[in-house]
Amino acid sequence: MPTIFTKIINGDIPCYKIAEDENFFAFLDINPNAKGHTLCIPKKEVDKITDLDEETFMGLMKFSRKVAKAIESSMVCERVGISVIGLEVPHAHVHLIPLNQMKDATFQSKVSLEKNEFEAIAERIRFKL
Amino acid sequence: MPTIFTKIINGDIPCYKIAEDENFFAFLDINPNAKGHTLCIPKKEVDKITDLDEETFMGLMKFSRKVAKAIESSMVCERVGISVIGLEVPHAHVHLIPLNQMKDATFQSKVSLEKNEFEAIAERIRFKL
Repeated sequence: MPTIFTKIINGDIPCYKIAEDENFFAFLDINPNAKGHTLCIPKKEVDKITDLDEETFMGLMKFSRKVAKAIESSMVCERVGISVIGLEVPHAHVHLIPLNQMKDATFQSKVSLEKNEFEAIAERIRFKL
Repeated sequence: MPTIFTKIINGDIPCYKIAEDENFFAFLDINPNAKGHTLCIPKKEVDKITDLDEETFMGLMKFSRKVAKAIESSMVCERVGISVIGLEVPHAHVHLIPLNQMKDATFQSKVSLEKNEFEAIAERIRFKL
């Protein structure tokens, strides 16, 4: 059975898309730590990030760096944090989180956004890509 | 004034070293979230990870991946998490954290270790490199 992220890539579950290329996909986290919190994933369905082959891992990091720079220049934040945890969805994913304070990085304080806010954020980040 | 991490690289502050090459350095976090929590840093002193030039960023990620795999095969953990926050020390650093539960990734629950425990952990990780 495909992961929830594969369903998002395939368009079976809607998302606020940020970027896509042949091998990678980025979209807004629907339960964000902060405005602009984005997930970058490989299209290849692999659970642990350390199990990605080196080429895919490095490609994912290059893709994530580009998206992180776009977030940093479009959102109000001190910097963009990078986080890979992976205890929930078994499909490797990189969290890119606009940080202003430590609590933005802890996954314990969430921001509630309306559809139009997600859309506006996605548009601002995409504009910087 | 050099950052605390540059002082560690230069040997002016002691550390439990894990790995070193021409451009990067890895050592145990002295205030770990979990046993085996390691920091990977570029020798180049740059604050934000997104401000590293692409070559250094990619080199840091390749180096971190290798260290993460050694941690994963030597420590008791479900997987190794990757985290870049950087709100404290102005020298880009990648946290590699052995994860068994979400709290290991939140930086709010710390593990206290004796010198001999740090030494034994460092030796186990180095053995897998």
